[in-house]
Amino acid sequence: MELNIGIIGCGYWGKNLIRNFMEIQNCRLAAVADTDKKALQYIKLRHPSLIAYTDYKDLIASNIISAVVIAAPAQEHYRMAKEAMLAGKHVLVEKPLATSAREAQKLVLLARKKNKILMVDHTFLFTGAVRKMKEIIEAKELGRILYYDGVRINLGLFQKDVNVLWDLAPHDLSIMSFLLDKKPVQVSAIGVAHLKKGIENIAYMTLGFKDDLIAHFHFNWLAPAKVRLTLIGGSEKMIVYDDTEPSEKVKVYERRVKVMHSPEGEYKPNYDYRIGDMWAPKIDLAEALRYVCEEFISSINECRRPLSDGEFGLRIVKILEAAKKSIINNGKIVKL
Amino acid sequence: MELNIGIIGCGYWGKNLIRNFMEIQNCRLAAVADTDKKALQYIKLRHPSLIAYTDYKDLIASNIISAVVIAAPAQEHYRMAKEAMLAGKHVLVEKPLATSAREAQKLVLLARKKNKILMVDHTFLFTGAVRKMKEIIEAKELGRILYYDGVRINLGLFQKDVNVLWDLAPHDLSIMSFLLDKKPVQVSAIGVAHLKKGIENIAYMTLGFKDDLIAHFHFNWLAPAKVRLTLIGGSEKMIVYDDTEPSEKVKVYERRVKVMHSPEGEYKPNYDYRIGDMWAPKIDLAEALRYVCEEFISSINECRRPLSDGEFGLRIVKILEAAKKSIINNGKIVKL
Amino acid sequence: MELNIGIIGCGYWGKNLIRNFMEIQNCRLAAVADTDKKALQYIKLRHPSLIAYTDYKDLIASNIISAVVIAAPAQEHYRMAKEAMLAGKHVLVEKPLATSAREAQKLVLLARKKNKILMVDHTFLFTGAVRKMKEIIEAKELGRILYYDGVRINLGLFQKDVNVLWDLAPHDLSIMSFLLDKKPVQVSAIGVAHLKKGIENIAYMTLGFKDDLIAHFHFNWLAPAKVRLTLIGGSEKMIVYDDTEPSEKVKVYERRVKVMHSPEGEYKPNYDYRIGDMWAPKIDLAEALRYVCEEFISSINECRRPLSDGEFGLRIVKILEAAKKSIINNGKIVKL
Amino acid sequence: MELNIGIIGCGYWGKNLIRNFMEIQNCRLAAVADTDKKALQYIKLRHPSLIAYTDYKDLIASNIISAVVIAAPAQEHYRMAKEAMLAGKHVLVEKPLATSAREAQKLVLLARKKNKILMVDHTFLFTGAVRKMKEIIEAKELGRILYYDGVRINLGLFQKDVNVLWDLAPHDLSIMSFLLDKKPVQVSAIGVAHLKKGIENIAYMTLGFKDDLIAHFHFNWLAPAKVRLTLIGGSEKMIVYDDTEPSEKVKVYERRVKVMHSPEGEYKPNYDYRIGDMWAPKIDLAEALRYVCEEFISSINECRRPLSDGEFGLRIVKILEAAKKSIINNGKIVKL
Repeated sequence: MELNIGIIGCGYWGKNLIRNFMEIQNCRLAAVADTDKKALQYIKLRHPSLIAYTDYKDLIASNIISAVVIAAPAQEHYRMAKEAMLAGKHVLVEKPLATSAREAQKLVLLARKKNKILMVDHTFLFTGAVRKMKEIIEAKELGRILYYDGVRINLGLFQKDVNVLWDLAPHDLSIMSFLLDKKPVQVSAIGVAHLKKGIENIAYMTLGFKDDLIAHFHFNWLAPAKVRLTLIGGSEKMIVYDDTEPSEKVKVYERRVKVMHSPEGEYKPNYDYRIGDMWAPKIDLAEALRYVCEEFISSINECRRPLSDGEFGLRIVKILEAAKKSIINNGKIVKL
Repeated sequence: MELNIGIIGCGYWGKNLIRNFMEIQNCRLAAVADTDKKALQYIKLRHPSLIAYTDYKDLIASNIISAVVIAAPAQEHYRMAKEAMLAGKHVLVEKPLATSAREAQKLVLLARKKNKILMVDHTFLFTGAVRKMKEIIEAKELGRILYYDGVRINLGLFQKDVNVLWDLAPHDLSIMSFLLDKKPVQVSAIGVAHLKKGIENIAYMTLGFKDDLIAHFHFNWLAPAKVRLTLIGGSEKMIVYDDTEPSEKVKVYERRVKVMHSPEGEYKPNYDYRIGDMWAPKIDLAEALRYVCEEFISSINECRRPLSDGEFGLRIVKILEAAKKSIINNGKIVKL
Repeated sequence: MELNIGIIGCGYWGKNLIRNFMEIQNCRLAAVADTDKKALQYIKLRHPSLIAYTDYKDLIASNIISAVVIAAPAQEHYRMAKEAMLAGKHVLVEKPLATSAREAQKLVLLARKKNKILMVDHTFLFTGAVRKMKEIIEAKELGRILYYDGVRINLGLFQKDVNVLWDLAPHDLSIMSFLLDKKPVQVSAIGVAHLKKGIENIAYMTLGFKDDLIAHFHFNWLAPAKVRLTLIGGSEKMIVYDDTEPSEKVKVYERRVKVMHSPEGEYKPNYDYRIGDMWAPKIDLAEALRYVCEEFISSINECRRPLSDGEFGLRIVKILEAAKKSIINNGKIVKL
Repeated sequence: MELNIGIIGCGYWGKNLIRNFMEIQNCRLAAVADTDKKALQYIKLRHPSLIAYTDYKDLIASNIISAVVIAAPAQEHYRMAKEAMLAGKHVLVEKPLATSAREAQKLVLLARKKNKILMVDHTFLFTGAVRKMKEIIEAKELGRILYYDGVRINLGLFQKDVNVLWDLAPHDLSIMSFLLDKKPVQVSAIGVAHLKKGIENIAYMTLGFKDDLIAHFHFNWLAPAKVRLTLIGGSEKMIVYDDTEPSEKVKVYERRVKVMHSPEGEYKPNYDYRIGDMWAPKIDLAEALRYVCEEFISSINECRRPLSDGEFGLRIVKILEAAKKSIINNGKIVKL
């Protein structure tokens, strides 16, 4: 029996999901839902075979549909995902999983109880660049990881109800959480809202870990140029991940400094600098969203946890929530 | 009567100072001092006319010398500058002015009391790029300045007694202080020492101002690549200052977002995005240190305050000291 | 009465044309044709309203269709365009117009005789970057144009029947012909076929003009990196057009050298170098193919010549033909 | 007995030579010569130990000097080098060796007859980047070399008596000749003189070899931006050498296309594209001129041929001469 899919939300990302699910084997995109009739009309013109609902509840209620994809505003994620799982559907939801850790936690528990797949669309995990970095890090090439620094800035679209942190940080937090096998134990963040009270358009976030690893991020909707730059510093090698590069997105540098034990004792250390080659591995440039959709279908068919499951999505939401709390308290450290 | 100059310290920067003072009109480089006899020998071979002292006290005591340039380690700045001024000399001292605000303050007071020029060599203020940005900002082209973001990272030489903040931050703090007419009121900073206890090799620093201006900096000695990138976001235009660019170091972007008042009220703001041309003004690429030396000589001859005088240097030291205090207290805000 | 369009060829570019004509007002995409049934099936699935022909002759014969778009291999252009115009249709044909100047000329004459629109899809003319350069050049900002240098290289798809010149040069020749108001009077070209006899994969082409303007191009299918770089040198300003840049594609440099008349006479000229600002105008980044399609429809509705009409396409084919002749004769100059 | 050196010419390059020979072991810089008394005075002030001649003939006549370095205008090279060798001196001469192949040939013969070292300062051969490429090519990593493409352009200083080809091409021709073990058999070149009759400021040069290797160069004094880009295409790997990059000057790409033999016969070839990693080896960034000076001294002391000896310099001059001839004849092929 074929797996029938329904997509809620026909906006920018919804259209990308429609295009991808249309071309995937092992499933059939059967229905879409959106309150915007014009958007539905646009879809129907191109894909007359799809059933179009103006009320997402009708899509969820449909007997023929067994998996629901939610591409609606973040505020709706919790309610829609809950209703879909209560109706016995598997769920793929846009990032972030929910707008509070409490709600995200509930969704995770519900998925477990109903024995349904709950997957969060953290698309970046499925890019060739991130998968290549995962490979490199798992092969222990970097040595001990010392710091993780991410910058994600541009002249971005201001969101009405969500600050720059909730908009952009899920990308970097999901990449970092995927790449590192350590979890942060504390967060501090500073943000400024220059245009609309309460909606920060620039934010800096620092994560602390149990050891001397440090992670730091800069998010900004008011930057003159687009920067998507991540540095991962290891004791043996270091990575520069520049997502604005067309093909050489990941560069691995053989650069390091080591303390040499000197006879005169601790107070006069010598440093051994090593600067070697740089290496840019070939990156799979295929569309990551395709892999997201395929992972969702496979995890349903194989009854296994998807790569970015509910628990993973919950971890990200917890950090976001703690960061927001820290911003309100002028950068006070918030324990995780 | 010609102005005779003496330089204390014949290391990397001392050699640059020697070369520049050698070629400047209106003064004569008369003497150098260094405890390292080999370094002195190297200088004597090239410039036999110079008097070479192994003890800087002899240079300071010399009657023929009326201005002393100090290119010694930061820990020596206070003592040497004090002695030189007490001996009636004008002083140009490497950045930072001193290693504590208390000492820096004393030097400022001493200069005033003795009526001597006290200048700090914040070289970046004299680069074509910074002077061009000053021009642009003074012409009010950026509108209201909203944020200042600086990144200064590379695989740097580890300093024995000074952390990455005291090593690199004086550059960015001096540029920012010169460009903006506002003073920060609080500092917070986070740092990690991966190689040597107490000597942070990575640090993030945030400065708060009275209004919603925010400044943030990333300093790192363990970075795989050299980055020297400053963003200055204004309400009308924005600057990207990339010091690693060979000639187009300053780019001015006509990019902005404005809130449009919408009839439906505050809760539904509309944003007006404007993305226009980019403009890279011609930059004077002449050596900045030459201008530093000339400014020192001119300020002596004209009995006027130099561009980066003792007060200016003191401001920088105060921020550095507060940042260090914040690092020790895990990023706690320190009032200035 | 609505204008009905038929598209011949459903390959990579054909799909782009279908997508664009689907979304344009003032016309209706009615039919497609392709010998590949799978390709037709793919289209039908997405656009069930379209009539699908396996024989393009049926599409041309259709009474309801009044304009035909040809996205078939270059060898078919002449035959298909001729048949379409003989059947009373307007024609938009992929670049190049035909594979010989003789055939291109015949098409131009036929269009005139039948009073039909004949347009060639030289897409680049409709990009924001090229239109911006046209504006700048028409405003006489560059002064007298001295040289035009184009590099278009990458690890490209080898074509079976067409060399790198016929594959890539139409882009640069159309841009150059559009920007400059002068026509070349001679061509020389050198090419090497490393992989398949007779199919050059690297070619250099030089165009001579009546005065001292020179144009030169480098085309290469075997390059390690993608380069799309054009320099236009003027006596007052110069343009760097880098099509691989995401947004700042066109940079205008205020750089020039002028001969100063010196009193000692001609044999000892002095040069006046001026190096000023650089300026990167905002570029319209909308899809150029959309403008191509709209121009085709508008020119039909307004009974006027389109921007890249048959005559324009013929000029390009003449140069390509002469260049091929020069390659065969080891770079001998061929008059145009 | 120490080797005493004399340098003729105290201009820009002469000063660099003085600085380097001053710091080299195994030799002693003893004298300099220049007709410009101010230049001599500048040198004497810094290096009082040097003997300064206004007539280079006196330097050549000096008994204490056994090696002469010529940093005078190209037109003087032949005469000065000849006189120096006739006086029994070893000679290091700036590139090009002479301004005609006939004169260069005579110098080579004279050096042989007098058993003196004749070296040409083709500095680029001694850069870390070129030596690294030599290593890679000698290790056969590129496979069969298919093409060599060089671009060397910028807003350059116009030379009074020498065109852009004689000014810039010696760099690229020496690098190419060093890297490839094949010699070109023919040259064609095109040039335009926009500012001064007979002094081409833009030139394109193509070299043909016995097989299907092709080399092509673009030289330009009127370019808006500085480009120093060389592509070396091999059947297995390809090199991009960008000399404007601060450290990653050489990039090796694992990219290639191969013809696959298909059963249907020659007329329908299939291509196998391979796109792999990119690798940027660590480059020695030490000053190349230092190595030039050391090679000169070593070759004298060890009585062996230096890396860029007279024969090497002669090869470059022969190509330059043929290229000039081709320019005069509108790009006609000139056999070597």
